[in-house]
Amino acid sequence: MEKLIVGIDIGGTNTKFGLINHKGEVLFQSKIKTTGHDEFNEYIETLANAIKKGLSETAPGAKIEGVGVGAPNANYYRGTIEHAPNLRWKGVLPLADTLKLHFDTPVIITNDANAAAMGEMIYGKAKNMKDFIVITLGTGLGSGIVSNGQLIHGHDGFAAELGHVTVNPNGRVCGCGKRGCLETYVSATGIKRTVYKMLADHLEESELRAISFNDLSTKTISECASRGDVVAKDAFEYTGQILGLKLADTVAHTDPEAIFLLGGLSQAGDLIFEPTRRHLESNLMPIYKGKVKVLPSGLQNQSAPILGAASLIADHLNNTIKTAV
Amino acid sequence: MEKLIVGIDIGGTNTKFGLINHKGEVLFQSKIKTTGHDEFNEYIETLANAIKKGLSETAPGAKIEGVGVGAPNANYYRGTIEHAPNLRWKGVLPLADTLKLHFDTPVIITNDANAAAMGEMIYGKAKNMKDFIVITLGTGLGSGIVSNGQLIHGHDGFAAELGHVTVNPNGRVCGCGKRGCLETYVSATGIKRTVYKMLADHLEESELRAISFNDLSTKTISECASRGDVVAKDAFEYTGQILGLKLADTVAHTDPEAIFLLGGLSQAGDLIFEPTRRHLESNLMPIYKGKVKVLPSGLQNQSAPILGAASLIADHLNNTIKTAV
Repeated sequence: MEKLIVGIDIGGTNTKFGLINHKGEVLFQSKIKTTGHDEFNEYIETLANAIKKGLSETAPGAKIEGVGVGAPNANYYRGTIEHAPNLRWKGVLPLADTLKLHFDTPVIITNDANAAAMGEMIYGKAKNMKDFIVITLGTGLGSGIVSNGQLIHGHDGFAAELGHVTVNPNGRVCGCGKRGCLETYVSATGIKRTVYKMLADHLEESELRAISFNDLSTKTISECASRGDVVAKDAFEYTGQILGLKLADTVAHTDPEAIFLLGGLSQAGDLIFEPTRRHLESNLMPIYKGKVKVLPSGLQNQSAPILGAASLIADHLNNTIKTAV
Repeated sequence: MEKLIVGIDIGGTNTKFGLINHKGEVLFQSKIKTTGHDEFNEYIETLANAIKKGLSETAPGAKIEGVGVGAPNANYYRGTIEHAPNLRWKGVLPLADTLKLHFDTPVIITNDANAAAMGEMIYGKAKNMKDFIVITLGTGLGSGIVSNGQLIHGHDGFAAELGHVTVNPNGRVCGCGKRGCLETYVSATGIKRTVYKMLADHLEESELRAISFNDLSTKTISECASRGDVVAKDAFEYTGQILGLKLADTVAHTDPEAIFLLGGLSQAGDLIFEPTRRHLESNLMPIYKGKVKVLPSGLQNQSAPILGAASLIADHLNNTIKTAV
């Protein structure tokens, strides 16, 4: 009997899900709207039915070994989503328990960046690594830390919030309520803020002066930088400078073999990788210099978030087997 | 037959060692000079003979189960001391291999702050904790990170160098070659530098104006602060401000249950704990607020470094038993 893992990625707008086999192949993939359900229970029921329909059409008779979920503000220990600002259901949502009403298997949840880190280890470029970091550069900055071959969840299930280490205690206002958090500088939104700060402070001509904040995208900034636009190039340099500086602090914590970047801003390639590597190196203490790789994630395709979620179960099964042996 | 662990703490001047039983009691403790040996091999032979003499006098017939060592610039994976600035023997020293010529048991080495963290978990206040941090505030700032109940060694064996996270890239010159490292502000030396900066910048009367940099000690600054000296009080406030700010970054990495402070500067009690806690809280993102304890270490006595070293073996034996079961 074929054994499959369910991977679910809950976003503010869409919920993607898929069925993954032991080789890490995505046999089936689909999505439903996250919005459009007044009740959380009703949303989970719709999701469960869509997964079961996919299963019966794709691999009838296959056995589901577990359900892995990447979700915003997910707590690994409690199996809950807690006060997620981008979801319509408020408070603490019993995600794992509600899914278990529909699937009689282990359900493991964590935030999307932690899922991405586990995905990198199980299916991506970190297969032979025990100590590495994943940084997701989307609307915000998410992160997952793997040490000793294990995802670090922390005492309370909220480890690896590197988007909220402090660059400058009097700096940019952050959605979390603090000021000067890393993600206010280093993220798709952060680099837009940097472009606008530079347009305000300086007088250089720039294509970017013709674009509103709302219309500005990382892709546009990348394209302008590639054409030689000074403001766009300086914005990437500044972003890499701050990311490199703060990643040097991260290296001093967990001494990783590699740091993987993924998400929208990482698609800018050398525009972001080159200054990040350079400023990381210049801020490392001597014992770390030249030892830490900064690499694009091995899971860049559309299925990455689903594979990340599924990897939580794959890792769980691996450990169960090891303990049994 | 009684089973004992050897704990060794190698410092620049003295090497302390002791024999510890399964209850964590130090049955025997002594020291030799670290200095005064031209050859590293000769030093280790003197040390091994002193340990064996202690064993035959204290617990004749007892079996040694392992040798744990806390040492400067120690590499856990390679069992080596690498380029330690405070030792007379240069280059890479094969510490574990040389000790094994004298003891036919496991030898585990790590730096003194990592040993302190393991000691806190095995013999101190972190017995029931799986996620915590230890910060040693001596001449420099050392640290050990425990996550998922395991000491984090990192890819290369040099994790948890929190003394060298960056407070200000253009700040105070650090012995490591960088500028603005945390230990240039937060350590016995760091607070002296802060006092001298304040005496230079301001005009307040202060008892501290009568004391040379070389003669100034944390104890003197503490005593002055307790008597109401404004400069001394401000120096502790500034030290706690910087430590709290950077520990908030650390919390965003590993989400610890507690942060333990030990070493000379921590003896100042509330003078350092109160501002550290206050500034840590004010820099934490909301999900962490009110959850992270800042506590004095449970291993403050003279035997602490030896217990820390011995705990490396105690932990190793615990894990060996678990795997066997």
